[in-house]
Amino acid sequence: MQKQWRLAARPDSIPDASHFDLVEVPLPQLEPGKAIVKTLYLGVAPVMLRYMRNETDFESPLALGSVMAGRGVAQVIESDCSSLPMGAIVQARLGWQEYALIDSSDRPAPFLLPTDLPLSHGIGAVSLSGITALVGVRDIGLIKDTDRMLVSGAAGGVGSHVAEIAKALGAQSVVGIAGGPEKCSRLKTEMNYDEVIDYKNEDVNSRLDVAFPDGIDLYFDNVGGPLLDNVLGRLRRRARIVICGSISEYLVEKEAKHRFANLQNLGRQDAKMEGFFVFDYEDTYADCIDTLADWVRQGVLNPVEHISHGIETMPDALADLYLGNNVGVRMVKVAEPALLS
Amino acid sequence: MQKQWRLAARPDSIPDASHFDLVEVPLPQLEPGKAIVKTLYLGVAPVMLRYMRNETDFESPLALGSVMAGRGVAQVIESDCSSLPMGAIVQARLGWQEYALIDSSDRPAPFLLPTDLPLSHGIGAVSLSGITALVGVRDIGLIKDTDRMLVSGAAGGVGSHVAEIAKALGAQSVVGIAGGPEKCSRLKTEMNYDEVIDYKNEDVNSRLDVAFPDGIDLYFDNVGGPLLDNVLGRLRRRARIVICGSISEYLVEKEAKHRFANLQNLGRQDAKMEGFFVFDYEDTYADCIDTLADWVRQGVLNPVEHISHGIETMPDALADLYLGNNVGVRMVKVAEPALLS
Repeated sequence: MQKQWRLAARPDSIPDASHFDLVEVPLPQLEPGKAIVKTLYLGVAPVMLRYMRNETDFESPLALGSVMAGRGVAQVIESDCSSLPMGAIVQARLGWQEYALIDSSDRPAPFLLPTDLPLSHGIGAVSLSGITALVGVRDIGLIKDTDRMLVSGAAGGVGSHVAEIAKALGAQSVVGIAGGPEKCSRLKTEMNYDEVIDYKNEDVNSRLDVAFPDGIDLYFDNVGGPLLDNVLGRLRRRARIVICGSISEYLVEKEAKHRFANLQNLGRQDAKMEGFFVFDYEDTYADCIDTLADWVRQGVLNPVEHISHGIETMPDALADLYLGNNVGVRMVKVAEPALLS
Repeated sequence: MQKQWRLAARPDSIPDASHFDLVEVPLPQLEPGKAIVKTLYLGVAPVMLRYMRNETDFESPLALGSVMAGRGVAQVIESDCSSLPMGAIVQARLGWQEYALIDSSDRPAPFLLPTDLPLSHGIGAVSLSGITALVGVRDIGLIKDTDRMLVSGAAGGVGSHVAEIAKALGAQSVVGIAGGPEKCSRLKTEMNYDEVIDYKNEDVNSRLDVAFPDGIDLYFDNVGGPLLDNVLGRLRRRARIVICGSISEYLVEKEAKHRFANLQNLGRQDAKMEGFFVFDYEDTYADCIDTLADWVRQGVLNPVEHISHGIETMPDALADLYLGNNVGVRMVKVAEPALLS
C-alpha cells in the first residue's frame, strides 16, 4: 500500500490540510510503455493554488477526489519504457503520492537529473525553479551588464536563485525584496543579493528612491499587485519586467484586485512586460540543466533548500508559500532511493 | 528667405497654430561635411506633442523659440557630404522649415528613398510609419498565421498599413477599430481590414465578444486607455500586445489617467506587452524599406495618404491627429523638387 493526497475541496484562501484527503491505496501496476517510480522528493509551487481551483489551461483539470497534481524527483523501480530505465533518477509529473505510474508522453516529459549532485537539487536548482530563474533572467529579461535590477519574492523558490544567476550572466548588482529580517539577512549571506529591502519593516518607496535614483532596467516580479505598479512608475527607457508570479494577487477577490495607475509608463518608456511559464520552454530544459549544474559544481549557484520530511507534510509545505514561511526552495523529502538488485 | 515654424508655447491640450510662430529667416549656409536640403514633404506624428512638452528623452530638448522638430522628405541642393549627394531624395530630420542644413551624424541618420515610388511614400509607407507597422507586427508582435488580431487606431498613419502588412506576413484576418463611418468604410475598402468596429457608434464590448469568442492573440495598440484594459481582459494564452501609441492618454491629466483592472491577466496568460519606438530600430531601416517598397510595387501595400498643401498648414495637420480627422498618413506637401542643373 502507499499514501496519496487527494483534492477534497477547492480553497477560497490559503490551502491547508482540510482541502485534501490522505488515503492509502495499492501501488500502481505496470502498463506497457510505462514505468513505476518511487517518489523521493516532491516540490510545491505557488501555481498549485490555481491547479486546485482549475484556473489554468496548461495543467489537466483536477476533479475533486483525484490525486493532487505536482512534480518531483523519483527513482524508476519497474520499467517497460527504454527512456525510463530501471534505477534512473528522474524529475517527473508524479502527483502527491509515494509511487506513480509515469510515461514519456507527459508534457513536460520526465527528464533525467545529473547524478553527481544532491537529489534535492532535482526539485529546485537544476530543475524547474532554476530553469524558471534562468529563462526569466536571460531569455525574457534579456539581462545586460549595465542593468539595474530588482527582484521581488527574492527569498522564494525561484527568487533565491535569481541574484546568483544574474551575476553569472554578468550583472553588476542585484537588489532583492523580501519580508522579515531573517529572510533579508539570508538574501545577503546565502543568496548573493547586494542590497535587500524588507517590505514588512522598511519604507519601500524611500528605499527604492535611493537604490534606483535613475530608475529600474530589469524587474523580476514574483508578487504582482501594488509593488508592480510602483515599479512601473520607475522604469528606465527600454526596461523589462519579467512576470514570473503574482502571489500577492492569487488570494485577493476579483473586486479587490489592484488597479494599475502606472501602466501607461510601459509605452512611454518603450519597455516590455512579459509573463511566462516554464512548461512552455521544455525544449530548453536539457541545455538549462547543463548550465545550472555546472554553476552548482563551480560554486556559482548555491541552492538554499527548505525541506520537511514525510509525505504527511505536503499541505503544510504548500501553505508555507502563501504564508511567506519558506526560505529558498520548499520541498518534502518522501523517501530514500530503494536498493535495487 | 524661407518660412519656418518655431515653438511658441507648450500645449496643455491639442496643439494648434497658437503654439507656434511662423517666421521668415535667411536660408542656412553650407558647412563642412553637411548638406543643404529643400523640404518637399513634412510628416506629423502623435509623439510630437511629447516633443513640444519635452517629455521624451529620445529627441533633443526643444526650447521655446526653436524650430519645431520633425522629419520629412527633402532634396539635396548643396552638399559637402559624400553620403548626401547633390539631387538625392532623402528622409531626414529637417524641422518644420523649407530648407534645412543636415548631416549624416543625426540619429536616426538621413536615409535614401526608393526612386521609383511617389515621393509622398517617403513620409509613410516606405518610411517611419511603414517601418513602425512592420517592426511592430513582425518583430514585437511575432505574428503567427493562427493569430486572431486586433488593431486600434486602425485608420491612422501607422494603423492604415497594419492589416496589409499582417496579411503579407501570413495573417488570416485582421479586425480594426476606428471612429466614424467614413474611416470604418475605408478600412475595409482601402486598407484590407476584414472586420471593422466603429467605437463611436457601436458597442465595442459586444462586437469584440463576437469577433473574438476565444480571445485575442495579438493586439496592435495605438490608443491605450480603457480599450487596452478591455483587451487585457480578453487575452489568449501567450498573447502579445504591441504598444505603438497611447493617443487616448496623451491629453489626459495625470490624475484622470485610466487605472488598469485587468493587467494581472498578462501574467495569468503568460502574455507579453511591449512598447517600442522606431528610432531604436535604425539598424533595420534599410531591410524594412526594401521589403515595404517591394510590397508597394506588388500592390500588396496600398498607402492611404492625407495631404494638405503649403508649410502654413503644418499646425492643422498636427492637430488633425488628436482630433481624429486624419485618414491614413497625414502629411504636408511643402514644395516640388528643384530642377538642378
